[in-house]
Amino acid sequence: MVFDLVIHNGVILTVNRDFDIIEDGVVCIKNGEIVKIVARSNDSPVPEGDEMLDAQGGIIMPGLVNTHTHLPMALFRGLADDLPLSVWLNEWIFPAEAKHINPESVRFGALLSCAEMILSGTTTCCDGYFYEDVVAAAVDEIGMRGVLGQGVIDFPAPGVPDPADNIKSAVAYAEKCQGLSHRIHPSIFCHSPYTCSEETLKRAKAAADSRGLVFQIHVAETRDEYVRSQTEHRTTPVKYLDRIGILDPNTLLVHAIWLDPDDIEIISKRNAKVSHNPESNMKLASGVAPVLDLLMAGVTVGLGTDGCASNNDLDLFREMDTAAKLHKVNALDSTVMNTRTVLNMATIGGAKAIGLDGVIGSLEAGKQADVVVVDTCRPHLVPIYNPASQIVYAANGQDVRDVVVSGNILVRDRELLTVDLEDILEKVRKISDDIKKK
Amino acid sequence: MVFDLVIHNGVILTVNRDFDIIEDGVVCIKNGEIVKIVARSNDSPVPEGDEMLDAQGGIIMPGLVNTHTHLPMALFRGLADDLPLSVWLNEWIFPAEAKHINPESVRFGALLSCAEMILSGTTTCCDGYFYEDVVAAAVDEIGMRGVLGQGVIDFPAPGVPDPADNIKSAVAYAEKCQGLSHRIHPSIFCHSPYTCSEETLKRAKAAADSRGLVFQIHVAETRDEYVRSQTEHRTTPVKYLDRIGILDPNTLLVHAIWLDPDDIEIISKRNAKVSHNPESNMKLASGVAPVLDLLMAGVTVGLGTDGCASNNDLDLFREMDTAAKLHKVNALDSTVMNTRTVLNMATIGGAKAIGLDGVIGSLEAGKQADVVVVDTCRPHLVPIYNPASQIVYAANGQDVRDVVVSGNILVRDRELLTVDLEDILEKVRKISDDIKKK
Repeated sequence: MVFDLVIHNGVILTVNRDFDIIEDGVVCIKNGEIVKIVARSNDSPVPEGDEMLDAQGGIIMPGLVNTHTHLPMALFRGLADDLPLSVWLNEWIFPAEAKHINPESVRFGALLSCAEMILSGTTTCCDGYFYEDVVAAAVDEIGMRGVLGQGVIDFPAPGVPDPADNIKSAVAYAEKCQGLSHRIHPSIFCHSPYTCSEETLKRAKAAADSRGLVFQIHVAETRDEYVRSQTEHRTTPVKYLDRIGILDPNTLLVHAIWLDPDDIEIISKRNAKVSHNPESNMKLASGVAPVLDLLMAGVTVGLGTDGCASNNDLDLFREMDTAAKLHKVNALDSTVMNTRTVLNMATIGGAKAIGLDGVIGSLEAGKQADVVVVDTCRPHLVPIYNPASQIVYAANGQDVRDVVVSGNILVRDRELLTVDLEDILEKVRKISDDIKKK
Repeated sequence: MVFDLVIHNGVILTVNRDFDIIEDGVVCIKNGEIVKIVARSNDSPVPEGDEMLDAQGGIIMPGLVNTHTHLPMALFRGLADDLPLSVWLNEWIFPAEAKHINPESVRFGALLSCAEMILSGTTTCCDGYFYEDVVAAAVDEIGMRGVLGQGVIDFPAPGVPDPADNIKSAVAYAEKCQGLSHRIHPSIFCHSPYTCSEETLKRAKAAADSRGLVFQIHVAETRDEYVRSQTEHRTTPVKYLDRIGILDPNTLLVHAIWLDPDDIEIISKRNAKVSHNPESNMKLASGVAPVLDLLMAGVTVGLGTDGCASNNDLDLFREMDTAAKLHKVNALDSTVMNTRTVLNMATIGGAKAIGLDGVIGSLEAGKQADVVVVDTCRPHLVPIYNPASQIVYAANGQDVRDVVVSGNILVRDRELLTVDLEDILEKVRKISDDIKKK
């Protein structure tokens, strides 16, 4: 059999169930899928492919899965740092969104984020924003995979001036988006339990359920939210969501920092999923999510960066490193959150959190060929004793050399092939010039 | 006047006392020194230089100062992760050092670390290890600046099989090293209060003082050390060092995590300096150093990576990002450890911590020309509202394009000009093959 694409001459981090590492491995791809993964012995020939990608001794691994983004917010990268969350949100981000978010700016903000993600090895993201149809078109155009939700919030929002239309608009988007591409999965993104009424939450969840969509929601992000929930709902944010029927296997709880032990048990029992965003949680001083306890309770946890306005980048390699270190120091135990746990969260765990673990998240026959090649011929990646350790603790997104999604090469030798990067950067600079004039 | 080197067409982050940022700035260099820094107006001509370095709209900033390294330990990068500190040290690092550390391996380990540092914008390091004369030769060869101390420990050590010779060996190194180059400053590195006797500490400090050398020492790194100090010395590690006369302005306290309020006051009163190593402290789960309190007490704090075996890289850009985020989440206050504070720690604060603030650490006339150009034409660095924010929260070492030390261009367009990088990588790979056989 001649394959469409063969990736060879690298160490394969499969991130399969046994966390197999193949010293001299070959990934054989046909029709966008991984057909087989071969371990080469000394003289065995390399399988034949119409296209060959030589990893040159680097590391071959699954594309990373970013479980929480607001792609167009790359427009606001570094606009406002080191501020209290309420000032950051109310005095900077919301006004900038009200004034500068429109289909044109959303398009270039999303393309910028996609370019950054794909160049740093992220092949799938789970996003929530407004004008999400434009976001979906950008993700599709660049060739990535996405679970993409139109935002629902009980305030006037970009493109949805009347909150009474918020669910209608989210549903219209989801229906428009269905069938755009097998790589694009519509979703519904309810902003939070404190910005959406009980009725909005229930109706949005029902709309997601009737269409089999992932339901994303920020929850228990700040201590303030936790305290207010006690006053308003006489219970924790998580138990409130459970009471009104929001928690189930298709619900992705984003942040999930301020949880009590019962909350963790409920999340586990409902098989709801969690997106952990350590760098955003640190930068906004929200707190440290009890991820060790969540994992211990069997909860599926994926890793996310959050939007660029609170991170300020989308590099999941750095996010893995930070996640490992944060939880070690927080627990005063260097053995927790080890390389395998972290790599799982950034790949198969993330895929499972957004309902795509049957399709992506590991390098295994039958899965979509979303593959990343990391160049290890750089001083900070030499020597190598353990490729998984190198990926988590030493590599960063700029070490990614080649990126493949569904068998298509999107990045080759660090060059993004599917869009005009210079044009995107130029357009974003113009938009930011306007924002600066404010 | 025709300058030797003119760096132009970039935003200058001076990191001077006023933290001036110059939109379109020019750095004029002669005889290795910054002669002047010019803000260009619209049509003003660029000053003339024998060599011109066009920053192409990027960011021009001081070379970073890494206040704590063990350069040869790059040989052990990723050898042993996710282990308790005692197992890591006693079962992995110490045996590997005993077997594999020799002048040849130290040379290539140090060259590897220097290559990584200089390519990621660090121009000065403060190092402590054994065979430090070999380290000094490597730092000098690559063209960097260093405060470099031979290790003193009351155990058999690489190159110093009899601990009775430890101080003699450190002094002989310092004398040999004096005058090697104006960029190389000898120092004495006493390992810690728990691995050196009181007599050793006092004699080593006296030897440093009589030669005007920086005295480096690990202190109060772990809770265990803190508790043991109470038993053995009936006081905290810092108060013990103070009691025996170790604390003064030439002493650099490395880690300084487990401090009580009195310790902080004493460090401040003695004007001793602190090297803060957040990523190493997180990865080894040592704890969070009370850096906010130290800064509040007026203590000079520099940033450090520690050795590659506990980080696992030497990228000070990432270290800045982590430092900011760690202290924000630890204090549950997003306004602390802001970009200016962090950038200061990585430049002028670090320079002051190792006694070089009159020479380096900021871009100002009269200082040595240690300058870094950061390429901002990359998706993760667009748009730019605040260059300092971009450096701390979005950039990493691989965004560094050009590096100048004492007016010499060591890196141009990401190419390291002073040593054969491929040869170093190959030599280190061979050494690591031996270590793997263990």
